[in-house]
Amino acid sequence: MRGKFLTFEGADGVGKSTQIQMLADYLKSLNIKTKITREPGGDVVGEKIRALLKSCASLDGICELLLLFAARRSHYVDLIEPLLREGYWVISDRFYDSSLVYQGLLKNVSIETIMQLKQITIGDFEPDLTFVLDLDISSSTQRIANRSLQFDAYDEYDRMDAEEQRVIREGFRRLVDIFSWRMVLINAAGSREKVLSRIVSKLSRLSE
Amino acid sequence: MRGKFLTFEGADGVGKSTQIQMLADYLKSLNIKTKITREPGGDVVGEKIRALLKSCASLDGICELLLLFAARRSHYVDLIEPLLREGYWVISDRFYDSSLVYQGLLKNVSIETIMQLKQITIGDFEPDLTFVLDLDISSSTQRIANRSLQFDAYDEYDRMDAEEQRVIREGFRRLVDIFSWRMVLINAAGSREKVLSRIVSKLSRLSE
Repeated sequence: MRGKFLTFEGADGVGKSTQIQMLADYLKSLNIKTKITREPGGDVVGEKIRALLKSCASLDGICELLLLFAARRSHYVDLIEPLLREGYWVISDRFYDSSLVYQGLLKNVSIETIMQLKQITIGDFEPDLTFVLDLDISSSTQRIANRSLQFDAYDEYDRMDAEEQRVIREGFRRLVDIFSWRMVLINAAGSREKVLSRIVSKLSRLSE
Repeated sequence: MRGKFLTFEGADGVGKSTQIQMLADYLKSLNIKTKITREPGGDVVGEKIRALLKSCASLDGICELLLLFAARRSHYVDLIEPLLREGYWVISDRFYDSSLVYQGLLKNVSIETIMQLKQITIGDFEPDLTFVLDLDISSSTQRIANRSLQFDAYDEYDRMDAEEQRVIREGFRRLVDIFSWRMVLINAAGSREKVLSRIVSKLSRLSE
């Protein structure tokens, strides 16, 4: 049986990595074959593109978008789609929704352009379920400050000021309204166990 | 006064590099400010993408195309357009016509997809004049064989078999028919001086 594709979205510092790991552990406890991945990256070519993105101090929005979609294409063709066919549940830290918010709202690339690239890259493929973790900005900023260098964060997503953080948070909240058939807003405040229980309670939507 | 953008296209081994250098020398002798560049590459980000492309043994056609257009975007924004505004004549070894032939005909990406990416990347921008160097396949294959390792050729364009070389040659010839308002077919046989004289004789089209 084909697996499920779950994605996590949201501003930096909302706790995506932690929740992804906890959800994967939970699914494995149910004997569901599960793989964690991330964007940009995930597969060999994607990780090379991630390194290239990190090595460029500032990039034109369209160039950055083309690189991110190149990474996404390779990620989709070489990793996500084969795993789904093998029955794995694949959980990705970010997917194309991040492009809509980061390049669309922060770098002013038109939504039409981004959706054209989405169609070229992955056609009608969509996540089965997308969790948007939502947290007030002072809390997410605090988490970023506390985070040690061991995390290999993609810099562009990391160096946001307060106004940008606000645009990002509102952008993701709007996406949940637009893509309500596959997206759920998750309150990311409180203990990690509490947040996980909110996520798990939404898994029933997969069988609808 | 705004400069001119000239591009050279054609199968590998038809003598583009030599003719580009000779044309640049000719233009400089007329006191025209001239810069030579190439694709993929040309600017800092473009050369990084070129290195990435060379490091990937085999790439999905769409992924390769997105990377090439990312390089093209950076090349256009950071190098070609600023130089043209400064009055330089810019001569590029390959431009988007190569994507139409190599990814379109050899990797079966639809022409519609390639033209959508062209529009996203450079809008209505086009070369002022494109020289398509045309040579029988046995001659171009011989030139490739004679070429030493000092040339930093982009491998994908280099490892073609005879049938692929035929598809490429015919593809470029067809493009000249389609884009006849900006493209000229140049017989690349004979001495380099003879070929240059054919190219120079077509420069008058720039003032039409």
